[in-house]
Amino acid sequence: MIEQGTNIDILKGKSMAAIFYEPSTRTRCSFTAAMQKLGGNVIYIASEASSVKKGETIEDFVRCMECYADVIVLRSPETESARKASSVLNKPLINAGDGSGEHPTQALLDMYTIREEMGTTGGNICVTMYGDLKYGRTVHSLCKLLALRPKDIRLKFVSPSCLSMPDDIKEYLNDRGVEYTEHRSITDVIDTTDVLYVTRIQKERLSEEEKDIQIVNITPQLLHMSKKTLRIMHPLPRVSEISTEIDSDPRAAYFRQMQYGLYVRMALLSLVVNED
Amino acid sequence: MIEQGTNIDILKGKSMAAIFYEPSTRTRCSFTAAMQKLGGNVIYIASEASSVKKGETIEDFVRCMECYADVIVLRSPETESARKASSVLNKPLINAGDGSGEHPTQALLDMYTIREEMGTTGGNICVTMYGDLKYGRTVHSLCKLLALRPKDIRLKFVSPSCLSMPDDIKEYLNDRGVEYTEHRSITDVIDTTDVLYVTRIQKERLSEEEKDIQIVNITPQLLHMSKKTLRIMHPLPRVSEISTEIDSDPRAAYFRQMQYGLYVRMALLSLVVNED
Amino acid sequence: MIEQGTNIDILKGKSMAAIFYEPSTRTRCSFTAAMQKLGGNVIYIASEASSVKKGETIEDFVRCMECYADVIVLRSPETESARKASSVLNKPLINAGDGSGEHPTQALLDMYTIREEMGTTGGNICVTMYGDLKYGRTVHSLCKLLALRPKDIRLKFVSPSCLSMPDDIKEYLNDRGVEYTEHRSITDVIDTTDVLYVTRIQKERLSEEEKDIQIVNITPQLLHMSKKTLRIMHPLPRVSEISTEIDSDPRAAYFRQMQYGLYVRMALLSLVVNED
Repeated sequence: MIEQGTNIDILKGKSMAAIFYEPSTRTRCSFTAAMQKLGGNVIYIASEASSVKKGETIEDFVRCMECYADVIVLRSPETESARKASSVLNKPLINAGDGSGEHPTQALLDMYTIREEMGTTGGNICVTMYGDLKYGRTVHSLCKLLALRPKDIRLKFVSPSCLSMPDDIKEYLNDRGVEYTEHRSITDVIDTTDVLYVTRIQKERLSEEEKDIQIVNITPQLLHMSKKTLRIMHPLPRVSEISTEIDSDPRAAYFRQMQYGLYVRMALLSLVVNED
Repeated sequence: MIEQGTNIDILKGKSMAAIFYEPSTRTRCSFTAAMQKLGGNVIYIASEASSVKKGETIEDFVRCMECYADVIVLRSPETESARKASSVLNKPLINAGDGSGEHPTQALLDMYTIREEMGTTGGNICVTMYGDLKYGRTVHSLCKLLALRPKDIRLKFVSPSCLSMPDDIKEYLNDRGVEYTEHRSITDVIDTTDVLYVTRIQKERLSEEEKDIQIVNITPQLLHMSKKTLRIMHPLPRVSEISTEIDSDPRAAYFRQMQYGLYVRMALLSLVVNED
Repeated sequence: MIEQGTNIDILKGKSMAAIFYEPSTRTRCSFTAAMQKLGGNVIYIASEASSVKKGETIEDFVRCMECYADVIVLRSPETESARKASSVLNKPLINAGDGSGEHPTQALLDMYTIREEMGTTGGNICVTMYGDLKYGRTVHSLCKLLALRPKDIRLKFVSPSCLSMPDDIKEYLNDRGVEYTEHRSITDVIDTTDVLYVTRIQKERLSEEEKDIQIVNITPQLLHMSKKTLRIMHPLPRVSEISTEIDSDPRAAYFRQMQYGLYVRMALLSLVVNED
């Protein structure tokens, strides 16, 4: 593990253009810290400052930015933006989330967290995904990555019926022979879970009838039923679905998960930015 | 004095997260320049970009930021925010102003300015505070710091009656044996003043009846009555309370005061950021 | 040519304050990258964060910023702002555009582009300016710079009649003996043009009757009529006036022009920032 505060300087003199067409503080700060810790510089472009308002296409805009930068990090609310941008660029582009599309670096850091927290050996790990499995982009991407190791994992999906895992993801898992089961209550599965991945109910995305949904929060009482080796993950921000009372419990891995995100993005940047 | 433009690099590879829940250009730029001049990096988070809007607590948010940074600088309109944040952090936090609470680095730079401009020896210095003494947070904090040296200073408070120094500050001074007097007219005290600390009338904070208040501006004519060794301070921005005609007078210390602020924040950052 | 990604470090430990009272993503990013590639730091101040709202003058504000920075870059919608700011500063100021006034670094990068693309020898170069010649600030400034070499160039202005080159610019050229002609159709002059400088029709600046104006776009078909050595420039952003089909044509110089802008600003910063 890289000790924080060490500056490795392998990207000294290199620039990262961080283009955020929608705010995403955590992702932006993580990429910024990653680039800076490698000795590189960051040029930040927020949506509101963009000349796309003047009628410029995203293709033109990123081509301009690659005149100044060695790598482009792009966050956009539009699904096709990363593909469009990469089609015209000569320099590497990292997709930092494109609407309802993908958020690949989040999926990578989630995978890395499981590997770090559970050890590098495979084994038959039970990963339980809990909360909003319908709109939660991160659990969809994580399912696809976990499906690369169909023998090593079992999945359990726990959600209210109206927020259950979409059919296309379940078909994807079926096609690859990944074992999964669906449940309504977290208490039914907590004792057999190795990794508990909790997601926030995103009130802003719910329909009127869905808005009253409550899920059982993760509390010290619930953890009495869990394995001692359980690890709890969350992409953050959380609202109330995980009690702050368990933050100091070793099973709470979500702040370590944040820090792993920094390392994963450092690794990614150092891989894609070309040496001169 | 550190020569500007010299990069000392003692915080190379370190990151400062500057979290500003309200804009404060001067404070932000001063901290940013301070960190950069020490060789460190800055991650800037403006309020509008914050995920606190999604229901995240400030405690959670700063814990995420400390995954990326080695020191947190926090500015907030809420009085309790610095205390709340520091209660969960493992890394150092610097309060850059918390509403009507404190703005400790401003008070430190004000003290440092008096020390630099008046010389390091003690003596019986007369510090006159002038303008809005009721809402001006900086004069309250400065009073408390000056009270650490009750034998070395005398205070004079000059303001319209409706903007006079609050009772709790005067009690604080009484308790510590600091001598002070109150006045209505700056011309009564200008000739005996060593340090004149002027504050802006913050129109946006005044009630309807207070809004018509005018104070006598500091002009070259007024300075004819002052000591040649007078020093004029102001936390800036000013509106019209100090005439620009005296900017080039050696007695005008307010721009030097800004520069001292950079040095004080450099010193503070280098003290609190831990060596690896 | 400086290889991108090389960090020259001649401004290590120096700070640039980039004050943008109006957004200008391209100019800001170009200056930011330039300073960073020279090893220096950037302090960015956006308009909305400015304390000028509290009644502070621009003179006071830039004097504060020079307490932290070694060079000030100022963009403002007000014509006199650069002059006002420089009148009080002790450190160098670079005008990054002041409303309908000047945008000198754009003019310098345009000149540098012509020099790089056409070779360093003089000769009788035909520069055709096309599009909105009335409101397009860049073509006005470029005319003035080109007038420094009256024997080396011929100018052709092509625009709708209501967007033709202003009289004061034409008088300026007349006074200096620069040859120019005016035209309505790009097809009349494309075959004799060496440098084609295209500008965007800025819909937001047009009157009601002007809004319906259409100009012939630059397409592969039109380029069949041009010299093989033609170079096409554009300050960007473009809307539809240049077809993306010609982006990969060697005659399309506009993205190279962006990159030259980085080099010009690096040169400028290294010239004006004082050595210690």
